[in-house]
Amino acid sequence: MKLIKTHKNFEGQTQFWSHDSTFTKTEMKFSTFIPSGKVKGCIIWLSGLTCNEENFITKAGAQKYLAEHHLMVIAPDTSPRGLDLPGEHESYDFGSGAGFYVNAEVAPYNDNYKMYSYINEELYGIVQNYFKQEKISIMGHSMGGHGALVIALRNPHKYQAVSAFSPIVNPSEVPWGIKAFTGYLGEDKKKWDDYDACTLLKNGHQHSTSILIHQGLKDDFLKEQLKTERFESAAKESGQKYQVNMCDEYDHSYYFIATFMEDHVKHHSSYIIS
Amino acid sequence: MKLIKTHKNFEGQTQFWSHDSTFTKTEMKFSTFIPSGKVKGCIIWLSGLTCNEENFITKAGAQKYLAEHHLMVIAPDTSPRGLDLPGEHESYDFGSGAGFYVNAEVAPYNDNYKMYSYINEELYGIVQNYFKQEKISIMGHSMGGHGALVIALRNPHKYQAVSAFSPIVNPSEVPWGIKAFTGYLGEDKKKWDDYDACTLLKNGHQHSTSILIHQGLKDDFLKEQLKTERFESAAKESGQKYQVNMCDEYDHSYYFIATFMEDHVKHHSSYIIS
Repeated sequence: MKLIKTHKNFEGQTQFWSHDSTFTKTEMKFSTFIPSGKVKGCIIWLSGLTCNEENFITKAGAQKYLAEHHLMVIAPDTSPRGLDLPGEHESYDFGSGAGFYVNAEVAPYNDNYKMYSYINEELYGIVQNYFKQEKISIMGHSMGGHGALVIALRNPHKYQAVSAFSPIVNPSEVPWGIKAFTGYLGEDKKKWDDYDACTLLKNGHQHSTSILIHQGLKDDFLKEQLKTERFESAAKESGQKYQVNMCDEYDHSYYFIATFMEDHVKHHSSYIIS
Repeated sequence: MKLIKTHKNFEGQTQFWSHDSTFTKTEMKFSTFIPSGKVKGCIIWLSGLTCNEENFITKAGAQKYLAEHHLMVIAPDTSPRGLDLPGEHESYDFGSGAGFYVNAEVAPYNDNYKMYSYINEELYGIVQNYFKQEKISIMGHSMGGHGALVIALRNPHKYQAVSAFSPIVNPSEVPWGIKAFTGYLGEDKKKWDDYDACTLLKNGHQHSTSILIHQGLKDDFLKEQLKTERFESAAKESGQKYQVNMCDEYDHSYYFIATFMEDHVKHHSSYIIS
């Protein structure tokens, strides 16, 4: 574990780290905020397309609320880096910056693009063993909202809470998801089911807490890619508790995320009892 | 006045603008945050070296506090852009991204690098006439802290309050300032006096309010470039009211700024009475 930079911030420390990952076989980077004093738990933040480990920690304004609630955060990069696989750097929505939190099975991505296990096992283990936190929850934005929902629904006992901003809730049936799942998982759509929050709900996966979602109504991706209403339907039908807030005039940006970050940190804090 | 982008943020709007400037003879860009409801005044934010109109508005986390205090902010770029003057793009601390808030008198910069008047007259006029705000104050960071102090000390009746993070308080006698003032103003050091906060205080310039400064003690530039203690001495000797907060372990970054932004917004709000 290599500490690259540390900045005092709201009496705690905002930090940037790198380490050699077992799952991606590359050096992976992540950022953290660790409040001063006793820390009661950790939120894993998953970012969206084109992001890396910097976007959330510089733009979301979360540190103030994390400090108030005695929570740390860990925000990993969104894909392996430093590779040069065929097609890896050609588009913003596939390959580098777009790992989609799946374990790729299709060559040439299947050697390194293991972001599902990287988050749910390796990064989770780092939080437990290196940062010594036992209470762990997960949230994310857009592609990372998809990642947070999928990882929490498949591993409900590992995560105290789950929430999302503007998540891709039904990736199997929208252009971003179809492109990513075809490229990483192949044409067999049965394999996609494990990575689709709506399908997981329909197949009986649940989280014991209420899933909190904020979605902007002026989000350019809402109608074609995000389709929040499908999550509401699937949750309602399956009995999953949820609270979806549709936010008038808000878009897909970090200005939207920053506005409702306090609500999400409070939500996680309420389920992370020290 | 051209609105480039607008994002709903803390119930107000974070916006990006461009306009053709009379003083720089170039297109200039700035960002704003305008809270919802009645606005009681405007803070002008001046950024530091290498920054443009985006850094503050994306990283400082000010919008939450501005919304709470019914204040707007306007954050301009730090130099003219789109030119290709000899030497203009060769270093991070001179030329583009480093206008130093002076009116250049030396060729080839004297045609465009009129950042002092651009801020104090043109941008100030935009706040009055376009955004319809009468109560205006000023703050900044590093080179922008220098700019805020100089502009407020020279025009005390135009600004309701002034504050700074990590300001360059005595540019005439530190490497950044000597390089910039030589390049923009020439070798005659008498011309530098108008752009040096410590010299202005010694020469009788004052602001009627207490000047608020936060400075990190782990700031790599403190000893060689910033020299906060010289401001304290000059203020003490001249009778200028001030409050300098030396902040243990904090550095020069926006993580430091974000931590104390609420204090600065409250300070300005206390002097901007609607």
